[in-house]
Amino acid sequence: MTSLSCLTFLTDFGLEDGFVAACHGVAARIAPATRVIDITHLVPPGDVRRGAAVLAQTVPAMPRAVHVAVVDPGVGTARRAIAIEARGGILVGPDNGLLSWALKALGGATRAVLLTNDKLWNHPVSPTFHGRDIFMPVASHLVTGTDLTEAGTEVDLADLVMLATPTSRMLEREAEGEVLSVDRFGNVQLSIPSAAAADLGIAIGASLIIRCNRRELTAPYLETFGSAAPGELIAFTDSAGLISLAVSSGNAAERLSLPPGARVRIAADVPA
Amino acid sequence: MTSLSCLTFLTDFGLEDGFVAACHGVAARIAPATRVIDITHLVPPGDVRRGAAVLAQTVPAMPRAVHVAVVDPGVGTARRAIAIEARGGILVGPDNGLLSWALKALGGATRAVLLTNDKLWNHPVSPTFHGRDIFMPVASHLVTGTDLTEAGTEVDLADLVMLATPTSRMLEREAEGEVLSVDRFGNVQLSIPSAAAADLGIAIGASLIIRCNRRELTAPYLETFGSAAPGELIAFTDSAGLISLAVSSGNAAERLSLPPGARVRIAADVPA
Amino acid sequence: MTSLSCLTFLTDFGLEDGFVAACHGVAARIAPATRVIDITHLVPPGDVRRGAAVLAQTVPAMPRAVHVAVVDPGVGTARRAIAIEARGGILVGPDNGLLSWALKALGGATRAVLLTNDKLWNHPVSPTFHGRDIFMPVASHLVTGTDLTEAGTEVDLADLVMLATPTSRMLEREAEGEVLSVDRFGNVQLSIPSAAAADLGIAIGASLIIRCNRRELTAPYLETFGSAAPGELIAFTDSAGLISLAVSSGNAAERLSLPPGARVRIAADVPA
Repeated sequence: MTSLSCLTFLTDFGLEDGFVAACHGVAARIAPATRVIDITHLVPPGDVRRGAAVLAQTVPAMPRAVHVAVVDPGVGTARRAIAIEARGGILVGPDNGLLSWALKALGGATRAVLLTNDKLWNHPVSPTFHGRDIFMPVASHLVTGTDLTEAGTEVDLADLVMLATPTSRMLEREAEGEVLSVDRFGNVQLSIPSAAAADLGIAIGASLIIRCNRRELTAPYLETFGSAAPGELIAFTDSAGLISLAVSSGNAAERLSLPPGARVRIAADVPA
Repeated sequence: MTSLSCLTFLTDFGLEDGFVAACHGVAARIAPATRVIDITHLVPPGDVRRGAAVLAQTVPAMPRAVHVAVVDPGVGTARRAIAIEARGGILVGPDNGLLSWALKALGGATRAVLLTNDKLWNHPVSPTFHGRDIFMPVASHLVTGTDLTEAGTEVDLADLVMLATPTSRMLEREAEGEVLSVDRFGNVQLSIPSAAAADLGIAIGASLIIRCNRRELTAPYLETFGSAAPGELIAFTDSAGLISLAVSSGNAAERLSLPPGARVRIAADVPA
Repeated sequence: MTSLSCLTFLTDFGLEDGFVAACHGVAARIAPATRVIDITHLVPPGDVRRGAAVLAQTVPAMPRAVHVAVVDPGVGTARRAIAIEARGGILVGPDNGLLSWALKALGGATRAVLLTNDKLWNHPVSPTFHGRDIFMPVASHLVTGTDLTEAGTEVDLADLVMLATPTSRMLEREAEGEVLSVDRFGNVQLSIPSAAAADLGIAIGASLIIRCNRRELTAPYLETFGSAAPGELIAFTDSAGLISLAVSSGNAAERLSLPPGARVRIAADVPA
């Protein structure tokens, strides 16, 4: 695969230690001409679901790449290490579901291998730092043209660990979903696609009802939070095409007590 | 402009989401050979003034570049998107004053355009993520040689939104200014240039008087905080040529309760 | 030295200001083709020991490089600026011990110079920002092939400031060491090499005794924390080959009140 030109890198390693840099060093040794783009290293420690969400929402903006992701509370246990080829790139990481949402965003898997070929690894392999010693060296070899099948034995795609897709369903006159993620601005991203708003007859500029935490709130459905008054709660379609809640110049997640996973329903605000 | 070799990037996007990386991905697709230097992404959300200050103080150290800055509380509203050519580089971002101090640091504007040519954008354009869909793609085209005038319609330089320049004035026997920024170390940067100290007859090693928050303090005017005793309040000329206050091994902003915008006066300490 | 292809960069500058970026800009001007790998910029302000520990543990993963490190509470004072050639790379920074542990990790010094040749510096030199004006420009020249001796006058290796090596000693039936560092996950890295566990007869899977803060705890000595129950205290050999303490899905440093420098002893858990 000669068209891959960059590596991306997402972890829960944080930025205060040298862990991320050690992996960059490994990449620089094996693939010195390859650009490495850091997605984030501030996934809360061990939060596979948060890592999966950020990865899936970021890979569509990337050039064809090998995406390395390491949120790996099971490092050193029997959990498997994998590389998955998708239509839009290659994903490398632990087989714990972290890669599963990004896989869909990249068009679905075409083949996958267990990382069993230790000739591509960094030795000695630390039982607690597979990012440096397995995932990044294998990814660096793949990005420079090593074929996927050289990284290990092929595995049935049906055997890959997949995270449950965040649910979203249409009820009678309302859509139900869950909080998929909360960003730096406190914006609450729901698992409800913007198409649901259209199906419910909610037009841009109209008012909608938000039901969560046994409360019922109304908010305008706007194109952007910039047009709201400071402190105003609004709903909008975010940059990933999902309905999201924001407080202009404020923090919607705190105001509404909505952490990831919380259930939310939306409906059109039809005057009685 | 064939001499531009890099992009710089400043935002309030934070580092815990994938927003910064998505913009890097866009740059990697359009300008794969271009280095991208992150200035900071930790501008407090929506703090245009802080973004403007950091940008202005950092661009002088850069090679000729296209500087992309996005602190954009008005994203998706009528605020305009612009690219400004200065003597020392090109600035791209929202027309909300964010770029105005850097413009001076780069020698002043020569021409500017509104970003109206959507052929250079990323589609579909999210109303809430112009960093990914307008600013970074346009900047990436500019850095690879696309002429400024292809990005949109030329605009009168006098029409650009400019932040008020932080005030600094000489009074009788004292200089008055404001806190321009506070850095990680708690050092308080004043809008008073080091020349003012000379004008007031304050020599390196002499003592000066600081008036702020209805208090009057004295501090030595030193070349560097390294020569002060731990806990000692000092004044010095910082790396941007501005008079600054520091507490050796401590935090001057906290000690003196001096946030950005606070008024401060300095004078020579002349014994009665 | 034509084999050096990258710069690494470690500081206590933080990420919210433009200080790190200004240094990247300087490198991009002098050495435009050189990759710069950030190790960390979140060393606590002025914490030379923490900077030395992270640097020493990260450089072994790097390609041959010029490593720039700036944790420099004495900037602008009589402390010297140095470049040290080691078998595995070049180190550039203040002569305050910051580089000393990395020097060992890179195979020991072969020669060193004081940075006295101001032709390689950025002018005017700020007395408070030698990272931008001395260390990074000198390092950028070195990485592009300028010989070490052009950077300044050679200095006796015995005159370099060295941090005391963290102590570790074998007592009767126990090993004593200190906390070397605490990482993002709260894992406590001891200055006791894994060989000490073998010498004490502690095998993987066996139980060991931890003595610290006048307490005595037992923990299994495992290959990896992934195999522990959530909340369980364990000991393991970390990715640097040192014995470390972790709490699975928890924070061992907080649980045990063990900051860097704290004394810890370990012993085999022999049933009475």
